Amino acid sequence: MKGYAAPMTRDRNELARSLAEVCVLRGQFTLRSGRTSTYYLDKYRFSTRPDVLSRLGDLFADRIAEIERTTGPVHRLAGAELGGIPLVTVASLRTGKPCLFVRNARKDYGTAKQLEGVLEPGERVVFVEDIATTGGQALEAVGVLREAGGEVAAVICTIDRQEGAREHIEGAGVRFEALFTKADLGIHE
Amino acid sequence: MKGYAAPMTRDRNELARSLAEVCVLRGQFTLRSGRTSTYYLDKYRFSTRPDVLSRLGDLFADRIAEIERTTGPVHRLAGAELGGIPLVTVASLRTGKPCLFVRNARKDYGTAKQLEGVLEPGERVVFVEDIATTGGQALEAVGVLREAGGEVAAVICTIDRQEGAREHIEGAGVRFEALFTKADLGIHE
Repeated sequence: MKGYAAPMTRDRNELARSLAEVCVLRGQFTLRSGRTSTYYLDKYRFSTRPDVLSRLGDLFADRIAEIERTTGPVHRLAGAELGGIPLVTVASLRTGKPCLFVRNARKDYGTAKQLEGVLEPGERVVFVEDIATTGGQALEAVGVLREAGGEVAAVICTIDRQEGAREHIEGAGVRFEALFTKADLGIHE
Repeated sequence: MKGYAAPMTRDRNELARSLAEVCVLRGQFTLRSGRTSTYYLDKYRFSTRPDVLSRLGDLFADRIAEIERTTGPVHRLAGAELGGIPLVTVASLRTGKPCLFVRNARKDYGTAKQLEGVLEPGERVVFVEDIATTGGQALEAVGVLREAGGEVAAVICTIDRQEGAREHIEGAGVRFEALFTKADLGIHE
C-alpha cells in the first residue's frame, strides 16, 4: 500500500512528525461511517497552524508541478468546505493557480450552487483534500466539478487513512495522490 | 463616513481597481436582508484569485500590526465560513499567527461545535471578514469567540458596504476596520 508514497526526505519526515504531534488524537472514536477507530485525525489542528499549513502548501505545489509535467496543464485547483478551504487556499497562493470552493450538498440550501469561483468548460482541475478515508467526499466533489464542465486531473489528499479512498477514486478514473499516509504519521492499526 | 479609511496609496488604489474589476456585478439584486440593490459584491471572485488574495493578505497584516502597536498583542485570527476562510488563511500565513474557523449556526448540526482550532481563554483575537453589510455575521462570530473565552481586539472587513456594520460592531464594544469601502471601489449609490 505504500508504493505510491513519495520518498521520506528529511523535510517530509519533519513535517510528518509535526503533523503527528498536532493532529493525531488517541482514544475511542466513532467515524462518520459508523466504524470505530483508536485514533482520530483533527484536520483543523494542522490547517489553523500557519507554520504547518505553509509547508503543506509547498508539498501540494510540488505534486501539482509533477502532475503538469507528466499529464499536461492544470488550470485550477479545488477544495471542499470546510476542511479543504485552507488547503486549496495555500496551494493556490503557492502555485498562482486560481481556485474553486465546493460546497457540501445541504437540504436547507435547496438549489443553491455548489461551486464558488469561476470554471471554464474543459479546464483541468486538481482537487485537494484534507483527510481521505473512503474517498466519498472527494468523489462527490469530482462529480460537481465534472458536471460544471471541468476535467479532474487528480485528487491529492493531505493524509490517506488507507481505507479505500485510492481504490474508489481511481475506480472513477481519477489519479489519486497522498502527501502522507497514516503509516507516515506512525499510525499502525 | 470615509474618515477611518487608510490613505489611498498607489498600491491600495491598484488593488481597489482589481477588486472592482473582478467582484462588482451590476444589476438588480435582492440581499439577504430582503433589501434590493443595484450592485452585488461576489466575494468568491476575489478570494479564489491568488494574485488578489495575496495582496489582501498584505493589507490584513499591516492592519493587524497597527492594532498590535496601538492596543497590545494579538494571539489569533478568526474567520467565518465560507467566505472568511480563505481570508483568514492568507492573513494567518502572512502574520504567522494561528487561526480559528467559525462555523455558521445550523439547525441540522444540532450541538456541533461552532469553533474549529485552538483558543486559550483570554487570548486576543482579530476577526477578518469578507463583505460587511449590517455586521450581523461578524457580531455572531464575536459572540462565539467571547463565549469560548476570547477577547475580540477588532473586526477587519475586506469591503464595507457602509450599511451599518461599523455602528453595530462598535456598539458591541469592538474596534472596526475596513480595508476598502464601497466608495473606494467606485460605487456611489
